[in-house]
Formats: sequence, C-alpha cells, structure tokens
Amino acid sequence: MSVTLNCDMGESFGLYRLGDDAGLMPLIDAANVACGFHASDPDHMRSTVRRAKENGVKVGAHPSLPDLQGFGRREMKMSREEIANSVIYQVGALMGFLKAENMPLHHIKPHGSLYGMAARQEEIAHGICDAAEIFGVPLFGMTNTMHEKIYQQRGITFIPEFYADLEYAPGGTLIVTREHDAKDPDLMAERCVRALKENQGTANDGSFFALSCETICVHSDTPNAIDIAKAVREAISPWH
Amino acid sequence: MSVTLNCDMGESFGLYRLGDDAGLMPLIDAANVACGFHASDPDHMRSTVRRAKENGVKVGAHPSLPDLQGFGRREMKMSREEIANSVIYQVGALMGFLKAENMPLHHIKPHGSLYGMAARQEEIAHGICDAAEIFGVPLFGMTNTMHEKIYQQRGITFIPEFYADLEYAPGGTLIVTREHDAKDPDLMAERCVRALKENQGTANDGSFFALSCETICVHSDTPNAIDIAKAVREAISPWH
Amino acid sequence: MSVTLNCDMGESFGLYRLGDDAGLMPLIDAANVACGFHASDPDHMRSTVRRAKENGVKVGAHPSLPDLQGFGRREMKMSREEIANSVIYQVGALMGFLKAENMPLHHIKPHGSLYGMAARQEEIAHGICDAAEIFGVPLFGMTNTMHEKIYQQRGITFIPEFYADLEYAPGGTLIVTREHDAKDPDLMAERCVRALKENQGTANDGSFFALSCETICVHSDTPNAIDIAKAVREAISPWH
Amino acid sequence: MSVTLNCDMGESFGLYRLGDDAGLMPLIDAANVACGFHASDPDHMRSTVRRAKENGVKVGAHPSLPDLQGFGRREMKMSREEIANSVIYQVGALMGFLKAENMPLHHIKPHGSLYGMAARQEEIAHGICDAAEIFGVPLFGMTNTMHEKIYQQRGITFIPEFYADLEYAPGGTLIVTREHDAKDPDLMAERCVRALKENQGTANDGSFFALSCETICVHSDTPNAIDIAKAVREAISPWH
Repeated sequence: MSVTLNCDMGESFGLYRLGDDAGLMPLIDAANVACGFHASDPDHMRSTVRRAKENGVKVGAHPSLPDLQGFGRREMKMSREEIANSVIYQVGALMGFLKAENMPLHHIKPHGSLYGMAARQEEIAHGICDAAEIFGVPLFGMTNTMHEKIYQQRGITFIPEFYADLEYAPGGTLIVTREHDAKDPDLMAERCVRALKENQGTANDGSFFALSCETICVHSDTPNAIDIAKAVREAISPWH
Repeated sequence: MSVTLNCDMGESFGLYRLGDDAGLMPLIDAANVACGFHASDPDHMRSTVRRAKENGVKVGAHPSLPDLQGFGRREMKMSREEIANSVIYQVGALMGFLKAENMPLHHIKPHGSLYGMAARQEEIAHGICDAAEIFGVPLFGMTNTMHEKIYQQRGITFIPEFYADLEYAPGGTLIVTREHDAKDPDLMAERCVRALKENQGTANDGSFFALSCETICVHSDTPNAIDIAKAVREAISPWH
Repeated sequence: MSVTLNCDMGESFGLYRLGDDAGLMPLIDAANVACGFHASDPDHMRSTVRRAKENGVKVGAHPSLPDLQGFGRREMKMSREEIANSVIYQVGALMGFLKAENMPLHHIKPHGSLYGMAARQEEIAHGICDAAEIFGVPLFGMTNTMHEKIYQQRGITFIPEFYADLEYAPGGTLIVTREHDAKDPDLMAERCVRALKENQGTANDGSFFALSCETICVHSDTPNAIDIAKAVREAISPWH
Repeated sequence: MSVTLNCDMGESFGLYRLGDDAGLMPLIDAANVACGFHASDPDHMRSTVRRAKENGVKVGAHPSLPDLQGFGRREMKMSREEIANSVIYQVGALMGFLKAENMPLHHIKPHGSLYGMAARQEEIAHGICDAAEIFGVPLFGMTNTMHEKIYQQRGITFIPEFYADLEYAPGGTLIVTREHDAKDPDLMAERCVRALKENQGTANDGSFFALSCETICVHSDTPNAIDIAKAVREAISPWH
C-alpha cells in the first residue's frame, strides 16, 4: 500500500494571491487545480499547470460551484444536470492548459461545498459521475459517504482521502469552515500516521472512527500550510 | 472550390434566449459555439453541441473577451498572454462538451471585439495563434487583415469568411455594431453570390472591394436571421 | 381597503431582453426593479427607473441572491450578515438611479429564492430586515410565513401580496419554478377577486386557504403577462 | 492652504485580502472605498465603511470599470452613458453602507483605467460628471488633464491630487502599472514636500513639472504602503 500527498493549488485570482504554491508544489504528489469558479482565472491556471509540470506533480481538476465571492464554500441548489455541465466546463477548461503542456489529467476532486454536497446527496454525486465518466479519471473523496457509494456503483475509481488539516466530528463527518485556521503540524502528522497505520481518523473530541486512505490532503490556504505539509510528508514517508 | 455556411450559435444565457438556434441549425454547415465569456453557460453549451450533432453540423469554438454584460462587443486592453490564456480556457471548456458527444473540434473563430482587435493588432492575433496552435485547428477570419497575415505566417490554416448580414465600409472594413438590424435577404444573398463569383465584397456606398471567401457567416441575433440564412443558402447552392 | 398591482420589471441584461416592460408599465402601480444580482445592469436599471417615472409608477427594489446564471432562483446558503449586506448593496445601487430621477424608494421586495428562503428561515428574514430598516421602507411578502412574522416583530411595515400567475400548494405554499408558464387570464383574475373578496387563495387542487392581500403581483417573464395583467387589473378595479 | 492624505481602501474580495487597511486607516484623512467592480464585495464594503467611521476618516467612492479579474486596470471601450450608469450604480451601492452608518459621501475618485481614461478622453470625463452631479460631491483628479478641464467646465469641485507612490513620465503623465512596487519612503515623502512647497512634481528622469495638489494619494496595495504613508504624513505635517 502506498499513499500520496495532494493539495489544492492555483487558488489565486487576478491580483489576489492565496496560498504559497511555490513553497508547497515541491512537497506534494498531486495538485488539485482550481478551474475559475471558486478561484483562479486563465492566467493563474496556466502558470499553476506549468509549475506542477516543473515539479513532476500530477494534475487533477478541482471544480466548484459557481461562486467566486464565496470561494465555493456556500451551498447552492443545483440540479444533477447543472452540476454535471458545470464540472464538464471546468474540467474541459483545465484540459486546455494540460494540452498546452502535454500533460494528462490525473483525477477530479470537487471543491468545497460541491464536495460536501456530493458526500451527502445522491443526485449531486451522480452529477459529478456524469462528468467524470466523460474524462475517464478517478474521483477523490471520503470514505463512508454517499459519494463513495455512488462513484463505486458507477464503476469510477474512487480514491479515499484523509484531511491532514481539517477537523472531523465524532463518527467522521468533516467540519468544513469558510476560512482555515493554523494547526499544530506534529499533531496533524500524528493523525495522518494513525490513518495509515490503524485505518482510523481522529475526531475533535479525541474519539476515533474507521476510514481508509490512499491520499492525504493539505490545503494551501491554511496559514501554516508549508509546515503542515513538511511534517506530514516526513511522517508518512514509510508509506509514500 | 466550395463554400460553407457558418453561424454563431448557443448565445443564450440562463433564462435569457437569443437567436433561433433550432431554426438555424438545419440550414448551416458549421456552428461557432459561444463559450461562456460573452454569452452561454455550461447548460446552453451542452445543449448547443448536442443540437449541432443531431443536425450533422461541425462545431467550432467562439471565444470572446470576458464581458458578458457587453456581449464581447466592447474592446478591452489585454496582453497577448492574457488573450492566449482566455482563449485556451474557453476552447478547452467547449472541448469538454465535444468529448461528451464524441465530436471533434472543427475550428476557432474569435467573437466580436476579440475578432475585430485581432484583425488590426499584431499582438492580439499572435495571442489567438498561441491558443489555436495547441488545438491544431483552423482559424476563421477576414482577408486583407492583420489576423490573416499573422495566422498564415504562423502556419495555421486560415479560412476567409464573408459576412452575409453586416455592412462593410468602402475598402472592406467590417462595420461592427452592438446590436444587429434586420436586412433584406435577397440583397444579402446577391452580395454573397458576388463574393463567390467575382471575389468582390460590396461596401455600404455600393463600391466593391477584393476579397476571398471560403465560408459565409450569418448571425443568429439578426432579427430575420432565418430568412437571410435561407436566401443565402439557396443562392450559394452552386458552390455549396 | 384598496389593492395595488405590482410587477417585477427591468429584468433584461445587456443584449438580452426579458419581459415586455413597455407594455406592462402602464398597467401597474408599483415596479419591483431588478438590481443587477439576478438580472439587469446599470443601463437597464437607469432606463427602467425612467420608464417607471414616465408612467407614474412607484419604484421598489427587487434584490436577489448573487446568481445571474440561475436568475436568483437557486437557493444559496448565506449568513444573515451576508444577506443584509447584499441587500444593502443592491438597494443602494437602485437609490443612485432614483436620486438621478428625483424619485423616492417605495418598498423592498426580495426576489426568487431570497424571497422563498425568507418565507421559511428566520435568519434570512432577519437579514432582510437589517437592510430594510436602514432604508425605512415597507417589505412585500406572503401571509402565514416566517417573513411576515419577523418583519412585523421588527416593526417594519409588511404589505401582504397575492401572486396572480403562480400556483399554490394546498395550505398556501407558493410553488416556485425556474421558468414561468402561460396562464389563463380569466382564471387568474377570478382567483384575485376571490383573494380580495373572500380573503382566500386557491390551491392547485382547487382547495382554498386563508390569506390577506394588499397588493397583487404579476411576473413580466410569464409568456402572456400582458393579458394576465389586463384581466387582473380589470377584475380588481372595484378595490383599486 | 492645507493638504489631506487619501488612500484606496477596502480592496479585499471574498477570502482574498489586499492591503493593510487596519494599519493604514489611522494614518489617512479620506478613504476611497472600492465598490465591487474592481475589488470588494458587500461584506468588505460594510466593514470598510465601519472602519473609516471608527477612525474618523471621510469616505469617498472609488468606482471602476467592470473588471474584477483585471482589477479595473485594463481599459474598456464604454460609452459616456455606460460610464455614467456604472458610476451611479457603484456610488449608490456605497451610499447604502454610508446610510447604514449615518455618514455622508465625501467625494468620488474613479479607479485605475477609468481614472486614466477620464484624464485623456472627453466623453469619459463627461460620463463621470454625469454621475457626480447627481451626488453633488467633489471629484479627485490630476492637474493638466482632460478630466480637470471637463469637471471644472461642468462646475464640479475638482480636488487635484499628487501620487506619493507612483512614477510620472517627464511632463507629468502618470505611469499606471498593473501591480505596484515597493518605493523608498523618504524619497516619496521628499517628492510630496516638493509638490506642496514648489507646486512641482518629479518625473522618473529627475525633471520637474508644474502641478497643484490639495490631496496626496497612497495605495494600499503597494508592498510597503504603511512605511510610505507614515513618511509622507510626517513630511507633510506643516501643511496638514
């Protein structure tokens, strides 16, 4: 068994900068590249794909609900068909930049509320599958969720991930916040090791929950993202 | 020599409808499909590509400056690199929908002010080439312009087009307006025949100018677009 | 007791046209003017306010969730503070155009999903009040809802309205759809008369429910909006 | 004669942060508050207006061309009427937040390319006046420009300003860049003193040009904006 480190990348927009992409890219295996709906724009997508290539990092699409102001972290009621078409649009746009750099698309990982909605709502998970099938790539997600169930039913490769820098409620529900706080790198690394060694996640009350994990995610917009990524990468090296 | 009929398609947005796509699609050979920057959205792009497929119509990308409110008809100062990246993004997005329908991309035709700017400004024409090279498809444009010169220098197939429903100034400069007026279908058809037979365009003072023409364009947002398309299609049938 | 006729107006955007504002404006008493978040733009807002003034029609603000593609008809999870600030922004923008024409703001009527959410969710209703208090104008809404309760608790004048062109479920819940269908003008007029005479709404199964009504709304994007407005206006003339 | 210090404020957007508003606000007299077209959103506008009030800072509107991705620093071809309506919309929106805080609007200062275009193009300067007349407040601008001429012809109070942190070409043309570089605070302060004492600006070749100056501008997105603001404020204290 091996595990990879993935990170949301390319979340700057116009003059606005978010995340230390230059610092994080050398530490990760796969980049989830923003596609312009919650963050990024054509210029940042171009440079993010180039930076991934220079660092030998695989590129996945990180499509979102259409909400730049809310950074894709506000739920929106959209139909299965609207979700599918929005994801096709964003993944297609990213593929233009991958084509420019002769790189393949590696995976799709929905962003923010789109990810959270797919984890709970069947129709949303289906909409994401409708898009993913067209591109023939795996989907990243969380175990014990609706999206795991639907992606697997549909025969799409499901890559379970564990969040190194977010809190989980008892039982394993991810706690999604609008802005990310700094976390203790060593504690985060310890939780990742437990996830790999014991197949257990750690909830915010100290209890554990069962999970499986093939990739670990760090967020570039967490204030001390570099320290967390370094600590986690070091800690997971036996499985990497 | 043969000539085709092309038309801007899929320019609705959300609840808003523009152009009688259902009426025009059966009359044309190639659709220039809006990519969301001046018009359209993922749902309309999906249905437009499907409609083109059902009618055996080839699909080209119709990328624009990023200006939904201005329908891409207000010039914006953008660098060559910004232009290239904006076009890659839009063409890529369209290719997602083409992939969904197993259709190839046929050509790229810049929209509105992007088209007009490329016809006059070397850097803009280069930006469009930078994108078109990645996708390896022909570019539509006007003869006797900067974009013809640059596209050909760069070794990209240039397909010269004649506008069936717009006015030209003496000498052959296209007169671009924010909204399109109804035109006399027979007069428009007559001008198209002259373009094919004599390689001559007709200016708004009745004078002629030299041109070459491999495709003829009608706009879906001209009030009597169907009548013009029918008259033109009938008139050009010897060359079609 | 007297009743007025209100209508959503100014819902065009850029080149896109929606609703026959020229035909409807002479028939109504109050216009709910779109503020750019679900429809309209600064140019259409200017011309809509001018048209209202020419017709002696009172102007209210028609603020929305920020979703142009979804025409404000897709629910979004926003906090009370985000709702309040979004409404202040839009109402303020409209007041710029009212100032230009020396007209007062008459009322605020939230649009689409914002209206529907306020009818059910306390925090959303409070967010709307937070904004309305600043401008000191009445709020339009439906009886027997959360927004009626909250607006009245907060001491804001509540003007109950009845929809002439939408269906209600048994018990009086409004059925909101993304696109509006044509309706039988006489039947719609009859329902309005019942609303005024008997204080009863008519549900889609023919059953009745209690309501009160000081204003009647017709939508400009209903296909036969003019016919409905004329029939309703004629029918309610005894109370007008 | 007295001089004030003004600064562009509130240019964050959603999760994105730009400029140290908390650090700068106590140093300035007047804030030019972004209105959502090049930067900001309703939430940031609300908090910016509140912060200005807490610091006793006067609030002006900082309207822009509609170009969030380009931060309003890409020229767009818009008509006089489109400019006027865009400015009315933005200033109106800001007035909503001023009304919430019981503050008056102090001035209007167009942002970025809108400012630059007004300095050269008569129609653009007129469009800005068309809006400013409605609100009855002064306009900030540069001496020896088209906008000075038009604003004064129209009888609108013109407040000439000097840029503490931008370069001028010989003769006094402002050099506008997409991103701002750090500057030497002492040198910048020295140039401001010369502007006030000698009515002379300093060009990037060391030559001088005539100007008048009633207010001095620093940009919050210059990397060392706080140091520049402090140095300038100290240096201009005899005239402050």
